[in-house]
Amino acid sequence: MRIVDIIEKKRDGGELSTDEIAFFITNYTNGTIPDYQVSALLMAIYFQGMTSKECADLTTAMIYSGDTVDLSAIKGIKVDKHSTGGVGDTTTIVLAPLVAALDVPVAKMSGRGLGHTGGTNDKFESIPGFKIELSKDDFINQVNTQGVAVIGQSGNLTPADKKLYALRDVTGTVNSIPLIASSIMSKKLAAGADAIVLDVKTGDGAFMKSDEDAEKLAQEMVNIGNNIGRHTMAIISDMSQPLGYAIGNALEVKEAIDTLKGQGPADLTELVLTLGSQMVVLGGKAATLDEARTKLQEVIANGKALEKLKVLIKAQGGDSSVVDEPEKLANAPYQIELLAKQSGYVAKIIADKVGIIAMQLGAGRGTKDDIVDPAVGIVLHKKVGDKVMQGEALLTIHANTNQLDAIKQRLYQSIEIAATAKAPKLIHKVITH
Amino acid sequence: MRIVDIIEKKRDGGELSTDEIAFFITNYTNGTIPDYQVSALLMAIYFQGMTSKECADLTTAMIYSGDTVDLSAIKGIKVDKHSTGGVGDTTTIVLAPLVAALDVPVAKMSGRGLGHTGGTNDKFESIPGFKIELSKDDFINQVNTQGVAVIGQSGNLTPADKKLYALRDVTGTVNSIPLIASSIMSKKLAAGADAIVLDVKTGDGAFMKSDEDAEKLAQEMVNIGNNIGRHTMAIISDMSQPLGYAIGNALEVKEAIDTLKGQGPADLTELVLTLGSQMVVLGGKAATLDEARTKLQEVIANGKALEKLKVLIKAQGGDSSVVDEPEKLANAPYQIELLAKQSGYVAKIIADKVGIIAMQLGAGRGTKDDIVDPAVGIVLHKKVGDKVMQGEALLTIHANTNQLDAIKQRLYQSIEIAATAKAPKLIHKVITH
Repeated sequence: MRIVDIIEKKRDGGELSTDEIAFFITNYTNGTIPDYQVSALLMAIYFQGMTSKECADLTTAMIYSGDTVDLSAIKGIKVDKHSTGGVGDTTTIVLAPLVAALDVPVAKMSGRGLGHTGGTNDKFESIPGFKIELSKDDFINQVNTQGVAVIGQSGNLTPADKKLYALRDVTGTVNSIPLIASSIMSKKLAAGADAIVLDVKTGDGAFMKSDEDAEKLAQEMVNIGNNIGRHTMAIISDMSQPLGYAIGNALEVKEAIDTLKGQGPADLTELVLTLGSQMVVLGGKAATLDEARTKLQEVIANGKALEKLKVLIKAQGGDSSVVDEPEKLANAPYQIELLAKQSGYVAKIIADKVGIIAMQLGAGRGTKDDIVDPAVGIVLHKKVGDKVMQGEALLTIHANTNQLDAIKQRLYQSIEIAATAKAPKLIHKVITH
Repeated sequence: MRIVDIIEKKRDGGELSTDEIAFFITNYTNGTIPDYQVSALLMAIYFQGMTSKECADLTTAMIYSGDTVDLSAIKGIKVDKHSTGGVGDTTTIVLAPLVAALDVPVAKMSGRGLGHTGGTNDKFESIPGFKIELSKDDFINQVNTQGVAVIGQSGNLTPADKKLYALRDVTGTVNSIPLIASSIMSKKLAAGADAIVLDVKTGDGAFMKSDEDAEKLAQEMVNIGNNIGRHTMAIISDMSQPLGYAIGNALEVKEAIDTLKGQGPADLTELVLTLGSQMVVLGGKAATLDEARTKLQEVIANGKALEKLKVLIKAQGGDSSVVDEPEKLANAPYQIELLAKQSGYVAKIIADKVGIIAMQLGAGRGTKDDIVDPAVGIVLHKKVGDKVMQGEALLTIHANTNQLDAIKQRLYQSIEIAATAKAPKLIHKVITH
């Protein structure tokens, strides 16, 4: 087998065989096939696409390019959730204890934030004492005894994906749906999930700017998962504005606590119930999405979900009293409101711009080595479709400085007020197969 | 400027600017831009194509990536000819003395053969004593005094093209018309030609298998040449069967001598007159193609063209008596006929297969380091459209062995005899602007 023949086959629109894809991934990972042939192949894939069978084969080859996590010692169906990344996306902190309260085992491997999107690990670490670095044995043991555990990514998972991603980044081949889909799915499946719920964001703050692309990506990932024999569902959710009100690590933890108390933002609550229902069905704890939703609403109402958050925090060395006393979480020294310059309706809150501003306040990372400040961020008071009067607060900036003129200026540029505006639809589509 | 932005622009169908193309070629040649980014760009060009302006800019950038030959010391308009390569293509050996006999200065830089196509240098070197390696001063001086000189490629001409070609060869990006066109034109123009006549072959034995592709390539090259300010014309000529009767170095020299005597094969004679007319017009020695053709026929009839071949051979150290006594050229020890197994009309002589067989007899090179045998090859007695009787000779094999069963077997497989067949049209198209 020669890689140049594989390149030409794909270039001419052919379907690569399982063996051809395995040959490509194995020999690229071990360094036998050089970058310059792989980048030509990636560009050919960019133009010609891949069939669902090819995507599944590529995903499988990447899963087995390195270590895989064996979760078989955990009883029950392990359901993982993945979001394609957004601004103010606090869902994991709510969902992990929420579905665990219904005895769906949650063995969650999470990442850190980069650029305009936050990371779940950074959010958990804003809880005093919370440790995200567990040994593999402690991680599995905690899921078996407490029902839920969260761990940072570790080990040599999907090295082929890491190498391919670095190459795609410099060769104009990032934005290819089959390549994105197999990259995400290989990481999730190598991490040992039996079933996967995908939250594919669409809009300004998301990687997929259009519903059409988001739906293609979601469908491709659902196909891959089901082709490989792991039940996979997806939703397409709105990321034209930030999710919920809070953007920033401790601020989002507070919002997660509110949501588990039944007092969270409407959009975050709805998203969590939609995703959670899918997880509970895939986890075998409800027969229908409606039944699952009712059960989730029950554990919110009776306090069991909130209790599970305390269990999770305590098990990982954190101070669980923050759940009842959220003021114990880090607070920024300056809290400064941004006042509306005119009356009207909020027509736009450009998610990626607001995400970048929160990052620059210290809530996120511009580069991998930046240190995150848990206290800072932004809390919106108005969302798209809300009425606002001139002089009323649009949001509060939580900062380490009161020299915020430039930040305020850019926030004004990120928010549009118009004569009329409507709240966007949150859940654009649900894809169950 | 960043190469990744250039890749993405081309990927998305944009037209690269002169500066972007110069940036790419300069920094690829000096090693600043790595192969893996260039191969992604080449694949994007494969899919998105290039405009005529981009092709001209790419050609210019490649010309100036290395040395260029300065032919300004030669009086008159230097017209070069380029063939995209075929089997039995003896045109240069006929054309060089033929147009020189009409005082068009011929300063010809030629290459060696590889694969199924022969090389002009190998053919000239089958003349005893003929030296293809001249100093640049001797080369220019010979053109000024004798009107014609032939030299092997030398110096650091178009290093960008060499590097790009090596990369294209292993990344599935050879077969792109804009890349082929700029590669050919950059080499010709770096070699100093004022005007260029292109012979683009089409059919089984050619790189371009269809008339449509051949015409696109020819038109692109004509556009490039004229955009850069060098008059360029092209013809599309048939390469579904070998050109002329002879395939092999000394055999083709004999055929070239016959043609200059007015006794050559009809197709070779016609091709030489068509290309030669263009060269004479571009060289300013005739006003129209018809006038040029009449003048060429005159110098064949009055012996001046043949005389010029003797001058060329003598000037380059060769034994010019071979022109009058071609039997002095190398002869193979075995000359074995291939007899027709049935009567009918020759319907096909698959040019690339016959070319490969001639190469395996020793007439060409499988790899760059193979040594060529001047004597061996094949002489056809029948061409497509000719009537043949069972037992009549289709061709004669000139070989160093009489163990030719396998060769004969494969020659039979390369020649089809049918109930009816027609000679193919030789000149498919002439492109003058």
